[in-house]
Amino acid sequence: MNALLKEIRHNPLLWLLVFVPVVFTAEKLKPEAHTLLFVLSVLAIVPLAALLSHATESVAAKTGDAVGGLLNATLGNLTELVIALTALRAGQYMLVKASIAGAIVTNTLFMLGASFLLGGLKYHVQEYNRISARMQAGLLFLAIVALLIPSAVSVADSAAGAAFTQQLSVCLSVLLIVAYGLGMLFSLKTHCELFASAEAGEAGEVPWPMGLALATLAGVTVLVALVSEVFVESVQKAAEAFGMSPAFVGFIVVALVGAAAEMASAFSGARKNRLDLSVGIAIGSASQIALFVAPVLVLVSYVLGPTPMTLQFWPGAVVMMLIATLTASLVTNSGRSAWFVGVLVLMVYMIFAMTLYLLPPRAQ
Amino acid sequence: MNALLKEIRHNPLLWLLVFVPVVFTAEKLKPEAHTLLFVLSVLAIVPLAALLSHATESVAAKTGDAVGGLLNATLGNLTELVIALTALRAGQYMLVKASIAGAIVTNTLFMLGASFLLGGLKYHVQEYNRISARMQAGLLFLAIVALLIPSAVSVADSAAGAAFTQQLSVCLSVLLIVAYGLGMLFSLKTHCELFASAEAGEAGEVPWPMGLALATLAGVTVLVALVSEVFVESVQKAAEAFGMSPAFVGFIVVALVGAAAEMASAFSGARKNRLDLSVGIAIGSASQIALFVAPVLVLVSYVLGPTPMTLQFWPGAVVMMLIATLTASLVTNSGRSAWFVGVLVLMVYMIFAMTLYLLPPRAQ
Amino acid sequence: MNALLKEIRHNPLLWLLVFVPVVFTAEKLKPEAHTLLFVLSVLAIVPLAALLSHATESVAAKTGDAVGGLLNATLGNLTELVIALTALRAGQYMLVKASIAGAIVTNTLFMLGASFLLGGLKYHVQEYNRISARMQAGLLFLAIVALLIPSAVSVADSAAGAAFTQQLSVCLSVLLIVAYGLGMLFSLKTHCELFASAEAGEAGEVPWPMGLALATLAGVTVLVALVSEVFVESVQKAAEAFGMSPAFVGFIVVALVGAAAEMASAFSGARKNRLDLSVGIAIGSASQIALFVAPVLVLVSYVLGPTPMTLQFWPGAVVMMLIATLTASLVTNSGRSAWFVGVLVLMVYMIFAMTLYLLPPRAQ
Repeated sequence: MNALLKEIRHNPLLWLLVFVPVVFTAEKLKPEAHTLLFVLSVLAIVPLAALLSHATESVAAKTGDAVGGLLNATLGNLTELVIALTALRAGQYMLVKASIAGAIVTNTLFMLGASFLLGGLKYHVQEYNRISARMQAGLLFLAIVALLIPSAVSVADSAAGAAFTQQLSVCLSVLLIVAYGLGMLFSLKTHCELFASAEAGEAGEVPWPMGLALATLAGVTVLVALVSEVFVESVQKAAEAFGMSPAFVGFIVVALVGAAAEMASAFSGARKNRLDLSVGIAIGSASQIALFVAPVLVLVSYVLGPTPMTLQFWPGAVVMMLIATLTASLVTNSGRSAWFVGVLVLMVYMIFAMTLYLLPPRAQ
Repeated sequence: MNALLKEIRHNPLLWLLVFVPVVFTAEKLKPEAHTLLFVLSVLAIVPLAALLSHATESVAAKTGDAVGGLLNATLGNLTELVIALTALRAGQYMLVKASIAGAIVTNTLFMLGASFLLGGLKYHVQEYNRISARMQAGLLFLAIVALLIPSAVSVADSAAGAAFTQQLSVCLSVLLIVAYGLGMLFSLKTHCELFASAEAGEAGEVPWPMGLALATLAGVTVLVALVSEVFVESVQKAAEAFGMSPAFVGFIVVALVGAAAEMASAFSGARKNRLDLSVGIAIGSASQIALFVAPVLVLVSYVLGPTPMTLQFWPGAVVMMLIATLTASLVTNSGRSAWFVGVLVLMVYMIFAMTLYLLPPRAQ
Repeated sequence: MNALLKEIRHNPLLWLLVFVPVVFTAEKLKPEAHTLLFVLSVLAIVPLAALLSHATESVAAKTGDAVGGLLNATLGNLTELVIALTALRAGQYMLVKASIAGAIVTNTLFMLGASFLLGGLKYHVQEYNRISARMQAGLLFLAIVALLIPSAVSVADSAAGAAFTQQLSVCLSVLLIVAYGLGMLFSLKTHCELFASAEAGEAGEVPWPMGLALATLAGVTVLVALVSEVFVESVQKAAEAFGMSPAFVGFIVVALVGAAAEMASAFSGARKNRLDLSVGIAIGSASQIALFVAPVLVLVSYVLGPTPMTLQFWPGAVVMMLIATLTASLVTNSGRSAWFVGVLVLMVYMIFAMTLYLLPPRAQ
């Protein structure tokens, strides 16, 4: 418990934890103040995500390389998964899909681009392990192909089309999870030497004791789930109040909130000239969402959701995911970076954000 | 003749030759047993394709590098060409186009991916000549652009549109054949040193004497043509019996049958750590179908077919060919491989196969 | 003035200057002879573009590296800008957009491909600085994404859609100009050492004195503007007379005329085994059109044009720009070239030209 308090004292991000009780109190007192509840729940999720991420790393550090890597990879996007599950249970499939697509685009473009920019402002040219970057980009490309196909192959007859899309989504989900498992076998076991540098983790951080880490993992997951409920309920109404389109909220706001903790790690890696770490987190996170979170949500929707969810996305989202993946492939191909590479990648992100912000409400 | 018999004794694949007389007998006795005839014709085409491929290599080995390479490259996909010509004469343009697109996708993804996987299971990391792989991928990309354009540029007015697509297809076909010829001039003559390793051919195989090789080439081509006729007649009805969509049959089944012989060579190369050979066969075969077989079929359709055939494909097929080419480019870019690269490429293939299998009959 | 006359005597291209007075006389005497006026104005623009380009380089050479590079980059496509502005003022937005898309495609494919081919016919294999080529290709990719988004994200409701496309076009234009500025900061200031070779300029040419260069710049720009007016007025009617579709004229003819001067430099660089120069001019020119000329035209249309212009292109043009960029990325990735690479790139260009030539008039 001492370790937890010490961590909180030293990490200003965690001071935001004060908003966790605040959001629950506010929800009891003013359940109709959607905009307030939205802002408070965002402020509460960010430090919880950071705690979750630290707890996962601590458990991973204690359990040895293979199991640790597995845990780290699987729980790394727990925040996104919990938020999406809450939205799924509420039947808000458009929000779920927008947040999946948004998380992929935000991790690939914003996290990667900002890492390159922040690193490049400090170092003239940075080099990183391009073999692991390529592997990650390859996995991501595969996943994007799987997400693209149900939208690309349209079926004219709508009843047959719906059945087809549903069957296809289930089959693709199983395939993606298998690919994800094999990818971990490859990077953690058979060819782990290729990924040496990217897996090193944040040096200088003291891992928590096992009991504390596990308790934090369990407790914070419950808290994230509870706060997510407030978030999902308030987000649409708050968006209207801010004049944002629902697509913008799901794609940009939810994705940035869910990835806040990973971003902190990725940016700090870039500032320490450890771009391997940043690229690994950014592209790895995106592949994980596509290969693990998205298919799990499809399969879980058969149990938890009001109706089965498919992998069919809004065509604009497919185009954006595809461009994001191509950008990441092109950019990481050389294994070198400078500030302007970061600017280029961020610009692509801004083009997307701008488009979604301006999009009329009923167009997505 | 002795050499031929010896070859047959040593190569278990060739024992399937027994199905050649069986299929003709079956067709005489039970012309309505479509499913049986389909299975028998598949079993008969596979060993014939292997014989054809060996005969071509033997002729090539005897005629010196330049002419030999030319022959090898031009006759390498003779099986696919003969099957497609049979379907063309029967006016089954949908089957012809599906088998062209399917052969490109199957060669690029299945043959390449399985080679990487089979090689990677035996060797930790494999290296190959990436210059020739890039050249082949470049040629393939060009051809795919040519096949994509008639589908991308749609014309609203249907009468003018049909005339436009037809003119365009003929012009593109001529252009593709010119590009194919220049590509051979480049790889066999002006810059042959860049392709040294990929052109080495299967070591350890004894080429047949010229007379036997030429006689086999002629005789087997006639047999393939005759069996193809049975195959093309029975394939649609058999597909219905198996519950397969016509797109799946053309794209996956016909393509796998047609490429069986090349696959045997590509896989055996991969197991001998000669990935140059495997990559050369896989991507080379795909470019050849796109640059040579497809345009020849368009031009020949003016003579043999009931109406002229165009290069306009079903949009889903265009997306799949484009993704297959991009995958091959991304993957061969580094000149290194490990088992998981093969898994990734095969997964993309399985995504396509799954989609086509589930596709409702009238959607393509 | 002597320097100017000497230049004209030594450069046969400049003898075409005689067509400048001819075109003005012809327009006075025979204002209805559209085909004649079209041919004369093309013949007059080519030498004027060459003069403009030489004057810009002379000013750049005198003003030091940073300012010089800036001037060179900004005024390098002055001809295209002036022609497009003339078409803009006449409200011919389709011609403006076709000439933007055409200039990007022509520079990326025709100029690059012909440089590779011309260089490759003289040298067996040519090497060039692939870092700067990649940076340029990256910038170009970003710009194409910006031009692609307004066409990819379609809005069903037409009134809301038009407003959305207009707002988006203005925002994207500002973003592109910012990216363009940062790209120049990067290549001329913070990381200029990476671009050393590509910026060297044409050796052996004597720059003009400052006064002459500035006067030429001003005088020739006015002449180009005047000739452009004749060109824009006559081009549509002349195209009909030649049986060309308007898309072909804007995309191919206008683009080739506008880029004639840069092509002369790029080809001469390739023949001198200085492919850095050729690649820099070809891809640099294309990025400049996309990042600077296109957004400037959108912003200027609010002042000069009858209605605001958007960045929404004909879908076929978007596909072609995207393929052109992908081709340039794939091809420049290795930093090596041989004649067949040039053939491949030119073939893609010919596929596009052929398609546009055959396109029925009302289809774009």
